[in-house]
Amino acid sequence: MAAAKRKKKEQSGLLFDETKGQQAAPEPLGEPAPVQSPAKRKARKNVAATAESMAARQRDISVSEFFAKNRHLLGFDNPRKALLTAVKEAVDNSLDACEDAHILPDLVIAIRPVEASENKFTLMVQDNGPGILGAQVPNIFARLLYGSKFHTLKMSRGQQGIGISAAGMYGLLTTGRPVQIVTRTNPKKKANHYHVQIDTSKNKPETVLDEECEFDWPTGTRVTITLEGRYQKGKQSVDEYIAQTAMANPHATIIYHAPDGQTIEYPRQTKELPFIPIEVKPHPYGVELGVLFKMARQSNAKTLVEFLRSEFSRVSPRLAGEMAKKAKLSVRLKPNKIALKEAEVLHTAINETKIMAPPTDCIGPIGEEKLIDGLSRVVKADFYASSTRKPSVYRGNPFLVEAAIAYGFKDDPSDNGNGDKSEPMLRLVRFANRVPLLYQQSAGAIYKAVLDTNWRNYGLSQSRGALPAGPILLMVHVASVWVPFTSESKEAVAHYPEIIKEIKLAVQECGRKLGLHVRRQKRIKAELIKRSYIETYLPYISEALRDILALKEKQVDSIQQKLKVILEKTRNI
Amino acid sequence: MAAAKRKKKEQSGLLFDETKGQQAAPEPLGEPAPVQSPAKRKARKNVAATAESMAARQRDISVSEFFAKNRHLLGFDNPRKALLTAVKEAVDNSLDACEDAHILPDLVIAIRPVEASENKFTLMVQDNGPGILGAQVPNIFARLLYGSKFHTLKMSRGQQGIGISAAGMYGLLTTGRPVQIVTRTNPKKKANHYHVQIDTSKNKPETVLDEECEFDWPTGTRVTITLEGRYQKGKQSVDEYIAQTAMANPHATIIYHAPDGQTIEYPRQTKELPFIPIEVKPHPYGVELGVLFKMARQSNAKTLVEFLRSEFSRVSPRLAGEMAKKAKLSVRLKPNKIALKEAEVLHTAINETKIMAPPTDCIGPIGEEKLIDGLSRVVKADFYASSTRKPSVYRGNPFLVEAAIAYGFKDDPSDNGNGDKSEPMLRLVRFANRVPLLYQQSAGAIYKAVLDTNWRNYGLSQSRGALPAGPILLMVHVASVWVPFTSESKEAVAHYPEIIKEIKLAVQECGRKLGLHVRRQKRIKAELIKRSYIETYLPYISEALRDILALKEKQVDSIQQKLKVILEKTRNI
Repeated sequence: MAAAKRKKKEQSGLLFDETKGQQAAPEPLGEPAPVQSPAKRKARKNVAATAESMAARQRDISVSEFFAKNRHLLGFDNPRKALLTAVKEAVDNSLDACEDAHILPDLVIAIRPVEASENKFTLMVQDNGPGILGAQVPNIFARLLYGSKFHTLKMSRGQQGIGISAAGMYGLLTTGRPVQIVTRTNPKKKANHYHVQIDTSKNKPETVLDEECEFDWPTGTRVTITLEGRYQKGKQSVDEYIAQTAMANPHATIIYHAPDGQTIEYPRQTKELPFIPIEVKPHPYGVELGVLFKMARQSNAKTLVEFLRSEFSRVSPRLAGEMAKKAKLSVRLKPNKIALKEAEVLHTAINETKIMAPPTDCIGPIGEEKLIDGLSRVVKADFYASSTRKPSVYRGNPFLVEAAIAYGFKDDPSDNGNGDKSEPMLRLVRFANRVPLLYQQSAGAIYKAVLDTNWRNYGLSQSRGALPAGPILLMVHVASVWVPFTSESKEAVAHYPEIIKEIKLAVQECGRKLGLHVRRQKRIKAELIKRSYIETYLPYISEALRDILALKEKQVDSIQQKLKVILEKTRNI
Repeated sequence: MAAAKRKKKEQSGLLFDETKGQQAAPEPLGEPAPVQSPAKRKARKNVAATAESMAARQRDISVSEFFAKNRHLLGFDNPRKALLTAVKEAVDNSLDACEDAHILPDLVIAIRPVEASENKFTLMVQDNGPGILGAQVPNIFARLLYGSKFHTLKMSRGQQGIGISAAGMYGLLTTGRPVQIVTRTNPKKKANHYHVQIDTSKNKPETVLDEECEFDWPTGTRVTITLEGRYQKGKQSVDEYIAQTAMANPHATIIYHAPDGQTIEYPRQTKELPFIPIEVKPHPYGVELGVLFKMARQSNAKTLVEFLRSEFSRVSPRLAGEMAKKAKLSVRLKPNKIALKEAEVLHTAINETKIMAPPTDCIGPIGEEKLIDGLSRVVKADFYASSTRKPSVYRGNPFLVEAAIAYGFKDDPSDNGNGDKSEPMLRLVRFANRVPLLYQQSAGAIYKAVLDTNWRNYGLSQSRGALPAGPILLMVHVASVWVPFTSESKEAVAHYPEIIKEIKLAVQECGRKLGLHVRRQKRIKAELIKRSYIETYLPYISEALRDILALKEKQVDSIQQKLKVILEKTRNI
């Protein structure tokens, strides 16, 4: 920041420009005595502001400045999480691109420490997707709020147009290195190699390199980001993230080169592409008055009926007519001439009309069987149960919830939360649109729903305000055309009452199945104790009978045997 | 959205424009048979995407579209919270404006139901601040990411340039009504009255009314928003928010007209303005390599030393020279010619140089005494303790933490969390820059620090993964030039390790004081039981002594008295 230049502006009265930059009033240039300056600064700065001086300080904030300063909103709070977030954003994009193009995904993920540095890594993610056209590369990788998924209603991993460019921005901020992209869209042509970086003060991409190059796959994209990070195994690690991703995406082959030199391969387990969702239009129940009013005013439809039919899903011309009638509006009313009062009655009428639930081909569950398959791949347990709910709607967006439970698993008991080895607590594994959520567990709707469930009903012990105790792994998956995350880092699902309700129902269904099992286990245990008593005392009873009835040894054996059978039969478990 | 127009574009090959609007591929116009269309749509839409078709769908997302869809990020998840958030944003702005202008704040808050509607309210907040210049009104109230506080390093309630315009946007979306502002900057002139609304697709303000009007105060601002909401008393209510705000701002007079017709007045309790923070420059320890590199490249400073001295706080020319020397860079190096490698060594050198902690006149605590005053105004308790930590730094930003505890309070026990009336759990009251945080308690650093504290050390019972039990109210205040919130709705403080550590230290200090008290209470209780035994058996001992020693009645009384005194002395509490 140039103090000289800024001082000039100050003199010329360009006060508005004055506030540009990281700090406000600049130190006067050429003041050699720093001893005096603090006092002076104080005297100058602590004067009361006026409407004029405040106005002079108001200015635009670029969305990338905003997120650079608020990087924790994007998942870059600390170096370890930053590395995970960058991996996650790149993997999400690759899987989405492959699935959109109906290609079975092949992913290579490599993380390498930057030479002679402990806290810098180069992350490379390569996919066999359709590739990216050159003109789009700078915008996709070096501009926040740019993408193809934001304006569509369809289940996908990415949705906001922030993720990968934010990872690139974080890399640039922490290491000064641009994002490198190699991409090839046509097997008959060469690939292209780009270096792009974001200008945070304007949220505009800069291309610093653009050349042809070789690429070993017919089509695909490789993105490389150098960033400050920390690699550490265990909970919430990149390794765990990739393992869980492999679990929820059995159709993808994932090869992972970890920074410690290890290579882990997850070959695909099915050649079947998962459910490919279809885009839908918004459902009328979700539209708000102000939005409806604006849509109508901007519509070119000639009639109200045409407007309603073409803008919303599940609205037939007959139904649109019914709505108009209910609102006492002419079906021939030009939507772009509608008044706010008219929009209000139309809005009420829409919500009073019975409309089919939104189409659900825009979202797909993992499915009850595959959920258990997935769980059993991760933990060996005594008992599994799962439940997939029917799609439901929040704010007009279709969503569905699934839950699966593994009880009595035996994997490392040392790894249960706060380190003590007493009874473990329930371990919650969360997914949104097939993406594992590793952070901010307690912030989200899933945690809340699980916490609010009364697990004592299912034979488990639970302290107030805590998860239940027991060797339980609970997996919850929320799928939606628009998952409402609590922050841009997409770590937890927001507390929409409709979503919490569905999660509770899914979890309760699993809970009831678990309850039967747990109670049966308890009964078996009690029964075994009783039986052991019987077995202990049976010989004495037989002895007594022998004395009373003067039986032979053989008869005693036979009676003892019969008694045992009868007792066991009556006490059948 | 005009199907006709869009179809035309499609034919003309303007595929890029094609993806504008809420949904993608439009229904062909004039198709009268809706029975056929779903199948057709399916067939058309579920084709594999290519690099080209994907590119055609990429587009810019305006920041207001983004937040309109993600309104829960801004605190508008549900109608009850929306009402609270709108009040909070307006009140934050009013208090900040008054304090910036060194004016003792007078606030009037009024919420009234909109006639004949159960779920619509008009919210009005009026202050005696310096007013707002007309040219700034549309930007401040109808444009996201616009403000004066984002680029400054100084403790204030607002910081992001989102809050009040988001409240206005939510009002527009849910009721179609613009934001109304009356503001007066000069007692000698009339006030101005504006209606402004946001164009969400462009994040640009529209002024729909601009006229002169009367205003009953010499200067000040009144903002009125009509929005969908729900008014409900109790926890997390507007009432609670205003009460807590009054508690943390004893210098403000607040008059609150609740929707149910009640009026609550909080007259100011001190005529002293609170600590007025001063702006600071960023501290060198917080700057990242990429940021340092960019700052240097864009600097007009003539030398490295001048650059370092003028851009950062706590860097004297001598210290700047030392840094350059350590980095083996010439002090005369032109900062705008610096190479990335050079920036790297400079960055390392900066972090290896001992630099004074950042100046702390940019943040101010509430103070240990005032904390206890504040608490005792809200709850009557047996014991109070408080602790104000020294300022510390995260990512170069100064911050400080305070905690206060009230133990053994007696206010309504019915209101402790999940409804059962067994032993209550600790009640946590959180503040950031004097603003009460009512939502997302479990998502933030404060909750985590309190949860991670071992309260059993202080004589309390605590289940694993839960807050401790007991009649405790714990208040934690985090003050910073930039509070890192977990979301734009500013409900919880992000998990920066430095901040968690300071919270723990503040809480532990209170905890230790509490522990002494709790243990003393326990000792007293145990002692009283023992003493009651002594008192019970003393007469029998005296009787026995009388029999053995053949004492007179008088002597017995005297001995009994002496014994009691001796026993009490030896068992002093």
